[in-house]
Amino acid sequence: MKSQRLIEPKRLKGFRDYSPQLMALRQTIMSSMRRHASLAGFQEIGTPVLEYAEVLLGQGGDETDKEVYRFKDHGDRAVAMRFDLTVPFARYVAEHQGEMVFPFKRLQIGDVWRGENTQKGRYREFCQCDLDIIGVESMAADVEIMSSLLDVLAGVAPTPLTLAIGHRGVLSSVIHCTMPSAFAEATRNEATEAAILIAIDKLAKVGRDGVAKILSAIPGVQSGDVDALLSVVLARTPAGDSDLDVVRKAAAGDVATAAAVDRLEQMIAMVRSCARDSGHSSKVRLDLSIARGLGYYTGVVFETTLDQLPGFGSVASGGRYDGLVSRFSTRSLGGVGGSIGLDRLVAGLEELGLAHAPKTPTVFVAVATEDAGAYGFALARQLRREGLACDIGLTTGKLGNQFKHADRCGYPWVITVGSDEVKTKTFSLKQMATGEEKRHIDAADLVAEIKSRL
Amino acid sequence: MKSQRLIEPKRLKGFRDYSPQLMALRQTIMSSMRRHASLAGFQEIGTPVLEYAEVLLGQGGDETDKEVYRFKDHGDRAVAMRFDLTVPFARYVAEHQGEMVFPFKRLQIGDVWRGENTQKGRYREFCQCDLDIIGVESMAADVEIMSSLLDVLAGVAPTPLTLAIGHRGVLSSVIHCTMPSAFAEATRNEATEAAILIAIDKLAKVGRDGVAKILSAIPGVQSGDVDALLSVVLARTPAGDSDLDVVRKAAAGDVATAAAVDRLEQMIAMVRSCARDSGHSSKVRLDLSIARGLGYYTGVVFETTLDQLPGFGSVASGGRYDGLVSRFSTRSLGGVGGSIGLDRLVAGLEELGLAHAPKTPTVFVAVATEDAGAYGFALARQLRREGLACDIGLTTGKLGNQFKHADRCGYPWVITVGSDEVKTKTFSLKQMATGEEKRHIDAADLVAEIKSRL
Repeated sequence: MKSQRLIEPKRLKGFRDYSPQLMALRQTIMSSMRRHASLAGFQEIGTPVLEYAEVLLGQGGDETDKEVYRFKDHGDRAVAMRFDLTVPFARYVAEHQGEMVFPFKRLQIGDVWRGENTQKGRYREFCQCDLDIIGVESMAADVEIMSSLLDVLAGVAPTPLTLAIGHRGVLSSVIHCTMPSAFAEATRNEATEAAILIAIDKLAKVGRDGVAKILSAIPGVQSGDVDALLSVVLARTPAGDSDLDVVRKAAAGDVATAAAVDRLEQMIAMVRSCARDSGHSSKVRLDLSIARGLGYYTGVVFETTLDQLPGFGSVASGGRYDGLVSRFSTRSLGGVGGSIGLDRLVAGLEELGLAHAPKTPTVFVAVATEDAGAYGFALARQLRREGLACDIGLTTGKLGNQFKHADRCGYPWVITVGSDEVKTKTFSLKQMATGEEKRHIDAADLVAEIKSRL
Repeated sequence: MKSQRLIEPKRLKGFRDYSPQLMALRQTIMSSMRRHASLAGFQEIGTPVLEYAEVLLGQGGDETDKEVYRFKDHGDRAVAMRFDLTVPFARYVAEHQGEMVFPFKRLQIGDVWRGENTQKGRYREFCQCDLDIIGVESMAADVEIMSSLLDVLAGVAPTPLTLAIGHRGVLSSVIHCTMPSAFAEATRNEATEAAILIAIDKLAKVGRDGVAKILSAIPGVQSGDVDALLSVVLARTPAGDSDLDVVRKAAAGDVATAAAVDRLEQMIAMVRSCARDSGHSSKVRLDLSIARGLGYYTGVVFETTLDQLPGFGSVASGGRYDGLVSRFSTRSLGGVGGSIGLDRLVAGLEELGLAHAPKTPTVFVAVATEDAGAYGFALARQLRREGLACDIGLTTGKLGNQFKHADRCGYPWVITVGSDEVKTKTFSLKQMATGEEKRHIDAADLVAEIKSRL
């Protein structure tokens, strides 16, 4: 290897290393998510990172397709790295439906990849934590998903959250009721509606005027329609929710829409009541302007934000996707789910000063003389069996360096072993904060002493 | 979406889905590994799945390079998916050495990808759990790695293990002492030694005669040399270890080799003593015929096998790689580490009937009437807050189906809520195993009853 040129140890743009501090925080969050999800009856599954490209593509919309990492593998198969955990889950359900019991409540935690433009807090590799319920189309499933996500989030983010809930079905009714002329040509229906949804989704980013401009540019859309649509979508009650009475008036006479609006009102009330029962301070808001970019949503859609970080964006989002599994199977299986953006959440907690890694090193065994190596190792193993985290000096003969190392790593206790300790079958124990040192104590007293001071 | 053709929900060959049972087992194993590694002072880090191809390639040997998934990304960069966690760690160390405290004890758990031929129990995506110590070249570090790996393994695999330890340096000395003619031409040295190592590595697969044949075909190797080499490498003490006295005799007069052999003998004794101290039944064997395929090893090399599954292969392996970081940095940092093949280990435990997933569903809340939905949700949230895992029926009105579902999912308790329970503020509780049912009990009694019977 000596003759090789030096290779620059560089990382790809948009990809990061996870330091021990960051990793400890992420693991703590993931453990908490697993515990909360398991308490709510969700079962964890996993799917491969690589899938056939045709399984993944064409589901998240054109924008997403462009960002997918795809290539030909060794067998010349067109493969792609997953860009979310929802589409692979639809494939999983279609493939394994014979072995599954429905409704199936699923947890999945895993990395996903998108070659999007990198920005602050946005990475090309990031971790998602998904909760889904598949095989049931009831409102109860929507309520269970949203309230479980809030429980999971509240368990890891001790800060006020707001869950904003919209509904693709109701929004679609509003669009059709307020913009009849845009849908005059039957062939244009789906593309027009998609373009309008994408425009509405930009409200938070570009504001009412910006969206009005985008809407006006859509073929078939008239400027009077734009105002009619936006005044319904943006109508608010004094409490700040979307005003469903305005929606009812706009859809006057449309029985199906009236029923959907009633059910949405019930759903919001139940999610609120669940959040209250769970004892955390999350707020639930009805916001019909939430459309979500991904193409596969069909019913409820939602986003969750950190109240103390306005403008930071959503840390958890999702919705109902009743058509996704039917892409792979003739059996129709309704689904609803949400993803927590784990790395977004971590970035938010860091910004709020709430990112506390739980690292607690305990004991460092310094080895003063080479003949004490085995004696030190035996002690280290005994301490670990007692549940005390313990590192050991690996460079004998340089005691000062070992103390310096223990200090830099933050070990509160250092035990020294050398020829004298081996001979007397004892140990020296030093508390780093006070400098207090005890010599010639035996193993049992040592363990008792450390445990009593933890 | 209606007009789309049905896409076959197929997975790529060599990739698998992880069912809830398998995932629960993997998570249990990973948690145990994290706990044991943390007790021994290892810190967990993470690195990206994708790296610049030049960072990863040319390090594992040609065989490995051929198996690496590589492609051009959106920015036309040559990228590759990691095939192990060791090479990315060398890049990590070179990049972050300024922020790190050495020696650094590292844990990393993550998936890796190799497009190798698939066989039973071998996948193209598999999970590795790595322990490494970087920045120290002492024997103590080698001992700490091997004994920590044994501790981590013993914590998750309650079955006898054997750690077989070899040494690249000593093996290289033996090769040079017994085959002087093969190294007569200076230009041939490195390639010849690599070819001989690769041949020796095949002993378990093709036997002594097979290896002899491969060795004889290497340019410069004479048939007498082959016998001389193999008789040293395969010499065994009555206890089954490589016979170091035979090595000493073969290397007679070579002072460096004699010293290396002495140190290896000490190392084996210390690892044995650590294994004994840790209280598990692992055996430690000295086996100079272990060469390991990967090109980057420079000192000790080791493999771990399950005694009850002869022929199953190694579940954990590694070695010392003192030159790896210097590929990226002018600073020399010695390293030693090992990987546990988590999925290999799981496959082994499954074959031995030791793969027990810890899934314990507790309570299912069946919702008899639609007006009881909110009441049922409130109870579910209360039970979860009490630490009781609890699922809830999401299809109201079909009580029989909900009981059938709870039974198929294995819930031992079913609570029913309906109009009557809402009115009386009580619940009905049924124990599924006995069929015993209690009606009109309140929430506090319900929780007490379930907890008392868990």
